Amino acid sequence: MQKRLWSISEYPFQPERHLYYETIFALGNGYLGSRANFEEGLEGQTPATLVHGVYNHAPGMLVPELVNFPNWTGLTLTVDGTPFHLRTKALDLLKPTGGVLLGYKRTLHMDVALLRREALFRAESGGTVKVIFERFVSLADVHVMAQRLKVIAIDGAPRVEILAWIDAEVTNNGVSHWTNLQTTAEADQITVSGKTGQSPYRMGIASRLISPQAVNAASHATQPRLTSVIQLDKDGTVTIDKLTAIYTSRDSDDPLGSAQAKIQEATAIGYDKLYQAHTAAWADHWRDSDVIIEGDEQAQIALRFTMYHVLIAAPQHDDDVSIGAKTLSGFGYKGHVFWDTELFILPPLTLTQPEIARNLLMYRYKRLPGARHKAQANGYEGAMYPWESTDTGEETTPQWSDPQPDGTRIRIWTGDNEQHISTDIAYAIMQYWHWTGDTEFMIRYGAEIVLDTAVFWGSRVELKGDRYELTMQIGPDEYHENINNSVFVNRMTVWHLEQALQLIDWLQQHAPDQARTLTEQLGLTPARLDHWRDVIARMYLPFDAEQQRHIQFDGFFEMEYIPVPHYEPRVGGVWPMLGHHRALQSQVIKQADVVMLMALLGDQVGSREVMLNNWHTYYPRTDHGSSLSPAIHAWVAARLGLMDDAEYMFEHAAMIDLQDNKGNVRDGIHGAASGGLWQAVVFGFCGLTIDHGDLKTDPKLPDHWKSVTFTVYYQGQRRQITVRHPVGNPVGATGS
Amino acid sequence: MQKRLWSISEYPFQPERHLYYETIFALGNGYLGSRANFEEGLEGQTPATLVHGVYNHAPGMLVPELVNFPNWTGLTLTVDGTPFHLRTKALDLLKPTGGVLLGYKRTLHMDVALLRREALFRAESGGTVKVIFERFVSLADVHVMAQRLKVIAIDGAPRVEILAWIDAEVTNNGVSHWTNLQTTAEADQITVSGKTGQSPYRMGIASRLISPQAVNAASHATQPRLTSVIQLDKDGTVTIDKLTAIYTSRDSDDPLGSAQAKIQEATAIGYDKLYQAHTAAWADHWRDSDVIIEGDEQAQIALRFTMYHVLIAAPQHDDDVSIGAKTLSGFGYKGHVFWDTELFILPPLTLTQPEIARNLLMYRYKRLPGARHKAQANGYEGAMYPWESTDTGEETTPQWSDPQPDGTRIRIWTGDNEQHISTDIAYAIMQYWHWTGDTEFMIRYGAEIVLDTAVFWGSRVELKGDRYELTMQIGPDEYHENINNSVFVNRMTVWHLEQALQLIDWLQQHAPDQARTLTEQLGLTPARLDHWRDVIARMYLPFDAEQQRHIQFDGFFEMEYIPVPHYEPRVGGVWPMLGHHRALQSQVIKQADVVMLMALLGDQVGSREVMLNNWHTYYPRTDHGSSLSPAIHAWVAARLGLMDDAEYMFEHAAMIDLQDNKGNVRDGIHGAASGGLWQAVVFGFCGLTIDHGDLKTDPKLPDHWKSVTFTVYYQGQRRQITVRHPVGNPVGATGS
Repeated sequence: MQKRLWSISEYPFQPERHLYYETIFALGNGYLGSRANFEEGLEGQTPATLVHGVYNHAPGMLVPELVNFPNWTGLTLTVDGTPFHLRTKALDLLKPTGGVLLGYKRTLHMDVALLRREALFRAESGGTVKVIFERFVSLADVHVMAQRLKVIAIDGAPRVEILAWIDAEVTNNGVSHWTNLQTTAEADQITVSGKTGQSPYRMGIASRLISPQAVNAASHATQPRLTSVIQLDKDGTVTIDKLTAIYTSRDSDDPLGSAQAKIQEATAIGYDKLYQAHTAAWADHWRDSDVIIEGDEQAQIALRFTMYHVLIAAPQHDDDVSIGAKTLSGFGYKGHVFWDTELFILPPLTLTQPEIARNLLMYRYKRLPGARHKAQANGYEGAMYPWESTDTGEETTPQWSDPQPDGTRIRIWTGDNEQHISTDIAYAIMQYWHWTGDTEFMIRYGAEIVLDTAVFWGSRVELKGDRYELTMQIGPDEYHENINNSVFVNRMTVWHLEQALQLIDWLQQHAPDQARTLTEQLGLTPARLDHWRDVIARMYLPFDAEQQRHIQFDGFFEMEYIPVPHYEPRVGGVWPMLGHHRALQSQVIKQADVVMLMALLGDQVGSREVMLNNWHTYYPRTDHGSSLSPAIHAWVAARLGLMDDAEYMFEHAAMIDLQDNKGNVRDGIHGAASGGLWQAVVFGFCGLTIDHGDLKTDPKLPDHWKSVTFTVYYQGQRRQITVRHPVGNPVGATGS
Repeated sequence: MQKRLWSISEYPFQPERHLYYETIFALGNGYLGSRANFEEGLEGQTPATLVHGVYNHAPGMLVPELVNFPNWTGLTLTVDGTPFHLRTKALDLLKPTGGVLLGYKRTLHMDVALLRREALFRAESGGTVKVIFERFVSLADVHVMAQRLKVIAIDGAPRVEILAWIDAEVTNNGVSHWTNLQTTAEADQITVSGKTGQSPYRMGIASRLISPQAVNAASHATQPRLTSVIQLDKDGTVTIDKLTAIYTSRDSDDPLGSAQAKIQEATAIGYDKLYQAHTAAWADHWRDSDVIIEGDEQAQIALRFTMYHVLIAAPQHDDDVSIGAKTLSGFGYKGHVFWDTELFILPPLTLTQPEIARNLLMYRYKRLPGARHKAQANGYEGAMYPWESTDTGEETTPQWSDPQPDGTRIRIWTGDNEQHISTDIAYAIMQYWHWTGDTEFMIRYGAEIVLDTAVFWGSRVELKGDRYELTMQIGPDEYHENINNSVFVNRMTVWHLEQALQLIDWLQQHAPDQARTLTEQLGLTPARLDHWRDVIARMYLPFDAEQQRHIQFDGFFEMEYIPVPHYEPRVGGVWPMLGHHRALQSQVIKQADVVMLMALLGDQVGSREVMLNNWHTYYPRTDHGSSLSPAIHAWVAARLGLMDDAEYMFEHAAMIDLQDNKGNVRDGIHGAASGGLWQAVVFGFCGLTIDHGDLKTDPKLPDHWKSVTFTVYYQGQRRQITVRHPVGNPVGATGS
C-alpha cells in the first residue's frame, strides 16, 4: 500500500476547527464509534462514544436517541506539576507561565484505523517533553479500546505524573441518559457501570493503566482515576498504556463482569499484540473494500475516507442493529436509521462486505412488527416501515422541529408521509439477493419484507377515476411535502409490485413451502395479486408529453422558479436563504428525486431522450441541500455521458465531510454521502451492472482518471475489477 | 493543460486565515507585486502593492524598505443601500440587518495569474446578488492592472451602487513613505501622485471605471472616488471594469502623465483583450517554466505554486532591480535582497528564463560600487557585497533586531560577518555562464564581479602559521555567529579563487582586451594571483579525520548537543524554544550549511563516505529554522540516495507556504524556498548536470513519482527533458 494516500493530518494545530476534526478523525469498529476528542479535554469539545443499538428516551425529549457512553479516553499528564494542555500562547517560551504547547500534529491513519497525536510541551519549570498519544478501537476484538502515551524528555529531566480516568458525567448535548451509575477504583483498574433511564440497557466499562511505575487508584463518584508517577532521566522515555473494555446488556448478562474479564485478557495480551490483531483485521477489510483510483489523488483519499467511515460503523457481529444517518460519529439525527442506510450505505457493503450487509438487512427483518404496527395505526395493511427507526422498530420521527430563528417550530411531515422507505428497503433486499445469490436469506427473511411491504402499497394506492394515485406523499425531495403523485414514489411502487409478483413466482418454484406459508400469513390471495397487476397497469406517472420529461409531482412547474445555479458559492442548501415557507412553494429541489429514480431504475425510466430532458430540467433546480444528492447526480450524469456535470457533482460529493461543505460536520459524518461516493464511482463512472448472469462494466471515467480498481463479491465469488477508458481497452473491464 | 492542478481555492470562507491568503494569492508581473487583500476592505488586512526598486528610508527607521504604493484595488458595491461585506452572521437570513454574506469562494488560477472571488450577498432589503470579482496584473503590459466586477440579481431587482477608489493613505505597517500626495477625480478617472520622502522616487497612478451607466467622480485629499449607479432588473446582470495604470520615475520622467496615457490606451483596448494578452504571456512563461510531475499531485501543485511566485516577482524588463527574500508579496525583510536570490531563486530562472536571470545579475553588476565601498570601509580590497541590498547597493542590514519578549534587542552580525554572499553571487554568475553560454555578459559584466570579489577574499584571508584561516564569519547557519573557519566559507573561498584563476586564463584567451582592462583596473598582478594559488593550497578546512567528516567550524562539537529530531512536531525552528543565548552555544543548526556545500560543489566536497558521514552528522542537528533549508536537504539526500530523508525534506519544503509550516506566511512568500523546490526536483531528484558539454540526468525519484518533465535552456537551446525511474529507462532521461 502507498501509505501517503492513506492518512489525513491536522498540522499545524487548528483549534478553531476542533469539532470538525472530532468528527472526521472518529474511530470505530462496527460495535461502537468514538469521536476524536482530546484525551486531556478541551473546552467546548463534545466527546462521544456511541454503541450500536443502545438507545434511550430521556424525559422531556421528543424521541429516543443513541446514548453517549462514559468517556473512556481520559488520559493526560503533568510535567513537573504543570498540566499538559493545548494553549500556544506564552509571553516567554523560556519561562512559560502555566506551560505552553510548542508543537502539534495529529494524523488519522486510515489503513490501520489509528489516531495518533504528537505534541511538544514545555512546563512552567522549563522541562520540555514530546508527547505521543495513540489510540485505536480494536476491529479484531470489538470490546477493546487501546491507548498508548509515550513521553520523551527532550529538555531537562522532568517528573511526570500520568492520569487516566473514565468520565461517567456525560450527556448528549446536555441530556442525561444514565442512572444507577457506579464506579470502582482499585489497584490498577477503574470501572463504571450504569443503566439507561427509560430503556433496559446496562453497561459496564473497565480500564487499566499499565505503567513501569506503581499505579494508584482514586475513587470518585463519577470519575474514578488511576495515576502513576515517573521520574524521567535526561533524554529518557516512558511508555504507558491504557486499555479499556466495554460491554452492554445487549452482549452480556453481566456487562461489568464481562468488561473486567475482557480487560484482564487484554492486559495479558498487551498493546502491541492487540494492535497487530487490529491491523490484520483492517487489512482484511481493505482488501475487499478499497477502491484504487489512478490519476486523482483527491478522489483517492476521499474514497478511502468515506469507505473508512462506512466500515467503522458497519456491524460485523450483530444482526440486530443498523447504521444511523450520521453513523456513530456524532449526535446528529440522534442515531436514527433512515433510508440512507438501504440506498446509500448498504450497496458498497452488499458488494464488498456481504456478511455485514446481511446483518443490516436482518435488522429490518426483526423490525417487521414495528412496520406492521405503523401500517395498522395508519389504516393500511402489510408492513409500513418507519421513516426514522431505532431499536424498537417503531416510528421515531419527531413531529416538530427545534425552534427556528423566529422562535416557531416547523411541523415535520416525513414520519407521516415519506413512505417510500418501505420500497427502499425492498430495493436493498433485491439488490442484496441479486449480488450475493443468498437464497437462504431471501427465502427465510427477505421475501417476507418485500411481500409485506408490497401488501402495504396495495392497500395504500388510491383509485381515482381510471388511474391509481398516491396523494400526501414526500419524495426524496423533502422541500415539497404532502404532494400528490410523486413520480419517484409512484414509479417505485410499480417497480415494487412487479418485483413482488416475480418473487412469488420464484418462491412457488424454488421454495413452495415458504411460498405457501407467506401466502397464508400475508394474505397473498389471487385477488390481491390481481389488484397489484391492476395498479401496475394503471398507476399514474406524471409526464409532460410536450417536453418529453417527467413531472416531479402534480403542479411542480406551476410553482416559483428560482435560478439555483446563481445561488453559488454557498455552504449548504438554498433552503435557509429562501425560508421554509417560500422554499415549499418554489421549484427548488433538495436532492436527487427524479434523478434518484434514474439512478435506481436506469433505462427502465424512459428513453435516453427523456432521461436527458429530465436531467436538464431537474439538475439546475436542485440545491443539494441534502448531502445525499451530489453522489447520485454524479452517478446519473456519468451514465448519461455528461462528464462535466458528473465530475463537478463527484467533487462536491467527495468534499462534503473533508471540506465541510455542508457546514455541519461537527454533528457527525454524512453516512449516506459516504456510501454514495462509492456508488458514484462503481455504478456511475465504471458502470458496473449484472448482465445475463455476469458482470459488465461500461466505463465513463473523468478524463484525468487512468484506471479504477475495485473488488466486489458476486454470487459468493471475489472479483477484482480494473476499469480504464474504453480507448485502448474497448471491453472496458477485466475481471480476475 | 489539466486545469484542476492549476488552481488553489479558499472555500468555504476562512476569515481567520485572511492574512495567509493575502500572501499566497498575491498577484504580480515582475514589475510590481500586489497582495490579495479584499477589494472592499476588511479590518486587519494588510493591502500592499510593492514596485521593484522603489525603496525609501523613513525617519526613525533603521533601514530603507520597499515602499507600499497607494492601494489601487478599492472596488465595492452597495445593494439597495447596504454596503457589501464579508460578515456571515445574521439572526435571520430573510431579514438580515446590515446585510449578510451567504456564500464565498476564492480561487487563484495559477495558469493565467487570475484571482477570482465569488460571493453571495443579501442586502437588508432582502435583495440578493451574486458578486464576482476578478483581477489580474498584466504580464503583457506591466503597468496595467485590471479588475472586473460582475453583479447578478438573483433575488429581487436591487439598485446597485458601484464604488471604486484609490487609497493613498497607506503605510508599511504604520510607517509612511509618501509626501507631496496629490489626487484628482474627474469624469470617469481618478489619479494619485506623490514622491517618496527620503529617496527620489515619484509615482503616478490613474484608474478608470467602465460602467454601462454614468460614472461620477468625487474628489478627496487621499481617496478619490468614482461611482456608478445601476438599477438591476430581476435576474439582470451588470459588468463593471476598473482599469489602473502605475508608473514611477524609474520608468518615466512624468509618471502621472504616463499613467494617464496608459489608462487611456488600456481603456481603448478593454478588459477582454487585455486579459487575452495577459494569458498569452503567461502561456509563454509556463511553456518554459512548468515542471510536470506524474504521480504526486501535492508535489505538482506545490511546484506550480512556488514557480508562480518566483515568476510574478521576476523582472522581465528591468536590469536594475532584484528579488527580495519575501518577493513582492509582503513586508517581511523590507524588500531587501539577500543571497536567497543568487543561490535559490536564480537557478530556476537561469535554466528556464535566462533573460530574466541576466537582469537579476545585472542588478549586482550595477552595484559593484556599493560592494567596493563596503570592502574599503572594512579595510579590504576588491568588492564585498552587502548582506542586505536595496536600490543603493550599500549595506542595509540593520545592526539590531526588533525588541525581544524581554524588551532587549539582539545585535545582528550578518551585515558585518556573513561575507559568503560575495561568493554566492560569483557562483550564480558562473552557473549562468555555464548554462547559457552568454559570453558577452561574462566578458562585459560577469567577470568583473567574479574577479573583484576574488580580490576581496584574497585580502580577507588570514595567514596563521602555515595555513590560511577566516575568523569572525557567519556561514549559512546563522545560529552561530562570528565563528572561526566555517568549512562552508573556507571551502567556497577556495572554489571562488580557483574559478577566478581559470576565468583569467579564459579571458586572456578569448577576450584579451578585457583581460588587460580588468587586470589593470582590479590590480590582478602576478603577485596577487600567486597569493590566490597559495590560499587555495593552504586554506584550512576543518576536518575530523577519525570520523571522516567535516567540522562545520572550529569548536562545533564542543558545544551542547540538542536532540533536534525530538523537537517535533513544531512550526518554525527550535531557536525560539532554546532562546538566543543557548542556541548560539549549542549544536543546533539553522539550515543547510555543510549540506549546502555538498549541494553546491557535489563530489568536490569529498568521497561518498565523507558525504554520508556529513549527512548523518548534520541532518539530525538541523532544525530548519530557515525556510531555505529543507529543499537543499531534499536535493542532497536524493543525490546520496537517501530517499526517505529526501522525500520527507521535499514535502517539508513544498508545504512551507501552502501549509504555513513556518507560521509567518502573512509576512510574504518564502522566495528562496520557492526557488529551492525547483532545484530539489531538477538538480536533486532528476540529477540534472552539465557533463562534457551536454546534459545528463541521474534520476533518484521518489517511488511513487512516475515521471518528471521540465524544460531548460542550455547554450541557447530549449530542451524538454523527461525523467523516469532508471528501471525500464536505464538512460534516465530523454532530451528532445
